Amino acid sequence: MYADLLIHSAQLMATLRGYSDGPACGEGMSEIGLIEDGAVAIREGKIVAVGTTEEVRAGGWAGPDTRQISALGKVVTPGFVDPHTHVLYAGSRENELSLKLKGVPYLEILKQGGGILSTVRSTKLATDEEIKAQTSRRLRTMLSMGTTTVEAKSGYGLMVEEELRALRLIHELDGEQAVDLVSTFMGAHAVPPGYSEEEFTNYIVDVMLPQVAVEDLAEFCDVFCEPGVFSLESSERILVKAKELNFKLKMHADELASAGGAELAAKLGVISADHLLQASDEGIAALARQGVIAVLLPATSFNLAKNSYARAREMIRAGVPVALATDSNPGSSPTESMPLVITLACLYLRLTPEEALAGCTINAAHAIGRANQVGSLEVGKQGDVLILDIPNLNYLPYHFGSNPVETVIKRGKVVWGD
Amino acid sequence: MYADLLIHSAQLMATLRGYSDGPACGEGMSEIGLIEDGAVAIREGKIVAVGTTEEVRAGGWAGPDTRQISALGKVVTPGFVDPHTHVLYAGSRENELSLKLKGVPYLEILKQGGGILSTVRSTKLATDEEIKAQTSRRLRTMLSMGTTTVEAKSGYGLMVEEELRALRLIHELDGEQAVDLVSTFMGAHAVPPGYSEEEFTNYIVDVMLPQVAVEDLAEFCDVFCEPGVFSLESSERILVKAKELNFKLKMHADELASAGGAELAAKLGVISADHLLQASDEGIAALARQGVIAVLLPATSFNLAKNSYARAREMIRAGVPVALATDSNPGSSPTESMPLVITLACLYLRLTPEEALAGCTINAAHAIGRANQVGSLEVGKQGDVLILDIPNLNYLPYHFGSNPVETVIKRGKVVWGD
Ligand SMILES: [Zn+2]
Ligand SMILES: [Zn+2]
Repeated sequence: MYADLLIHSAQLMATLRGYSDGPACGEGMSEIGLIEDGAVAIREGKIVAVGTTEEVRAGGWAGPDTRQISALGKVVTPGFVDPHTHVLYAGSRENELSLKLKGVPYLEILKQGGGILSTVRSTKLATDEEIKAQTSRRLRTMLSMGTTTVEAKSGYGLMVEEELRALRLIHELDGEQAVDLVSTFMGAHAVPPGYSEEEFTNYIVDVMLPQVAVEDLAEFCDVFCEPGVFSLESSERILVKAKELNFKLKMHADELASAGGAELAAKLGVISADHLLQASDEGIAALARQGVIAVLLPATSFNLAKNSYARAREMIRAGVPVALATDSNPGSSPTESMPLVITLACLYLRLTPEEALAGCTINAAHAIGRANQVGSLEVGKQGDVLILDIPNLNYLPYHFGSNPVETVIKRGKVVWGD
Repeated sequence: MYADLLIHSAQLMATLRGYSDGPACGEGMSEIGLIEDGAVAIREGKIVAVGTTEEVRAGGWAGPDTRQISALGKVVTPGFVDPHTHVLYAGSRENELSLKLKGVPYLEILKQGGGILSTVRSTKLATDEEIKAQTSRRLRTMLSMGTTTVEAKSGYGLMVEEELRALRLIHELDGEQAVDLVSTFMGAHAVPPGYSEEEFTNYIVDVMLPQVAVEDLAEFCDVFCEPGVFSLESSERILVKAKELNFKLKMHADELASAGGAELAAKLGVISADHLLQASDEGIAALARQGVIAVLLPATSFNLAKNSYARAREMIRAGVPVALATDSNPGSSPTESMPLVITLACLYLRLTPEEALAGCTINAAHAIGRANQVGSLEVGKQGDVLILDIPNLNYLPYHFGSNPVETVIKRGKVVWGD
């Protein structure tokens, strides 16, 4: 039995092995299973062998039809997993940039019809094909920078028909392009005009969630838990209902204010709590106790330019498993670049390159319930592999602003580069 | 007489016209000569027509052999000019990243043989071919992100033979790849071990500068004027001597401390003063009075992660012409990306997209004495043109972390993309 693809002779291969049952945390985030002169063999889309080039060659995986790629002098890693995006939408909001640069507050931009409601409007007015074309383009950019699995949230629909449409489009896109998508229902993204928070919470709980569940359109349910948007109480109502309906749970928590979001996340046992810029010490401790993954979004902090970043080192010290995501969205983080997120994580969250890599591979996979399939180079997992044109791991955050990815392999097939 | 190349139908073309005699400053930095449905025709490497598509077509420039490229829905600009780089060197310093992230001070890294002296060593040990290969690769990355003209400094040689070699290699590289290079002698980059500042200043003035002048290897002379490196007095001695030898002048000024660097730059009438994070109010006023260009390097601030940026808005308000550069170097700014510099300039220096574009085209060209040839789309200038795959100018800083450049045209030839 021969492999279809054999990547060999990697200067360094980061396997991220050993974390399929639970995310890396604490010092574990630095133990990323490095192999020098590494090789990985893939057959029928799955990894069949991982080790040194000598070991894998000795396994007899290289047959006459096996495609062989040398990664000599290069670094090989699992495909990046982006566990927090709002990548499905139409339109863009660069017109708000000048307002923002002039210091106009977000609430004022919102009042002028801008902000999230502008994207709700442009997405509603767009055809399915337009939304998919614009989103596909972003997914293609992500893929070119090494991202092979992406979580995608609804939340620019707000009304049930639009939310269902968004989730259906995520499913269609999942089948139509190379990046694997994991869908999250986030009707609780904003309270639309004309509703009180309570009314809209009722609508989510009584109307939207049951329909999304019936149509089986989302794996996760997420809530923008923040004072003035969805309170702790509303967030809990929505997430408790979601749990009854067998959704896995996520929370946007403590982004703008320290308001007990992390504590609630821990109490509800969500899979991940995201943003966490203002998480309290007790909140961090609670996340650690419950094994809730902190999904940190430094590109959003970067783009908001307020020099306010999550306390990642405290989280890692406390034993919270940390993951990284782009938060790709048209307002606070118009980017697709996981390499830039890695640089930001090292420079501004003070992660080491090893921790950052764990954060956007195996821990990110855990954050979206895919650690059994992706996020590490281990036998039986999907053949999602990157060849990075860098000589060592430090070089990944160090050399910034360009694309370090040379080749992207998805399920054993070269889908970008080469 | 037909054009060799006609780019037409641009959604928006930013010509930057009207500043060939002096850089854009104040409100001028926002007046970037926009043309809707723009076109530019190039013949024998030079621009022969600029205007609306209708105007240029009416000029009869499109012949049977004219290559035509539609920029429909896209933005066309001059090629970016990067007016401050240390791009010529061998080796890299990603090994210092973990020390830096642990908070080890730069002086301690320097003591351990790291920092600039590490690059001096690795460059000295490298062959000419190795240095050129590594530098060419960086220049290629720059080109792929829209940079068509680059200033390159010596300064990793320090001793005269190595400095002369660096400048010769810059000249060789200028002829061997697509990006145009402008050379700057910067022997005064650091004081090497074993020398006092005074001794090394004497060596620069008495030995290095005359030899560089005799061999005609550099257009500019630059000094790292900073307390503890080259004092105001040493900097002035070096630059006065350089002026006598017909070098044009530049200064690294007020990067780390407010120590009268900008004031000295104005007094000496240098072409550009660079960095300027700590420039005083009086220093800024003096730069404005003398028309000294402030070359700002936000990627360096970004990479140093101290949330310390130059006061660009005050400079523009005072009438200082502002230019932007990557500062590409292996220590404080390991990047080649002018698009990222533009995003940083808007988010962190609070420039408008128009000002940022002026900063990395016409004003950058003035900063390196090339405004008569590049930096704007005007008849008679070099045919260095970018087609950006963006719908408007705001989108350029807004959408960050990926490459907005679709096609790079250098002297009328497509050298990247398409
Ligand atoms: Zn989000
Ligand atoms: Zn410099």
